[in-house]
Amino acid sequence: MLIVHVHVRVKPEHIEAFKLATIENAANSVKEPGIARFDVVQQADDPSRFVLLEAYREAEAPTRHKATAHYQAWAEKVADMLAEPRSRVVYANIYPADQGW
Amino acid sequence: MLIVHVHVRVKPEHIEAFKLATIENAANSVKEPGIARFDVVQQADDPSRFVLLEAYREAEAPTRHKATAHYQAWAEKVADMLAEPRSRVVYANIYPADQGW
Repeated sequence: MLIVHVHVRVKPEHIEAFKLATIENAANSVKEPGIARFDVVQQADDPSRFVLLEAYREAEAPTRHKATAHYQAWAEKVADMLAEPRSRVVYANIYPADQGW
Repeated sequence: MLIVHVHVRVKPEHIEAFKLATIENAANSVKEPGIARFDVVQQADDPSRFVLLEAYREAEAPTRHKATAHYQAWAEKVADMLAEPRSRVVYANIYPADQGW
């Protein structure tokens, strides 16, 4: 299991459009066999900040995800909505066991 | 659903002990009715950094969690293992729907 947190800051006028585009991408992403979870959360004290929590079942899954039509459509759609480049932190799973994701 | 990310940096010599104590706390925490998930991840490029991802079913659940014996034992056990005070960011759930957590 490979866990990726993508941190995003969105221009205030694009928050709702970003949410819609990202929900659509997440709903398609969880259908990929290599993806165990694809959660999206919005910071309570700063609604312009989001985290995408992506749990991949194996090392090649992120590359396969980036080749999908839904990922590419999302990346293109949100490019102008971002207030700064998105950042990415990679984690190893500690708890629960991989099948719990 | 109320999602809390707790960011922790651990002294290098306490990484393994921190992991064990935190797995024990997580395994007990997911038995609380107010807690939907309690995930623990370790940063790939800096193993001294962890995130605890806590998904609470309602607003009072974090207070109830902090009153449990397992939380209090964990907080006491790890206090001297931390390299800096832990930080906490609160999020609203966007995806999936609350029952998907």
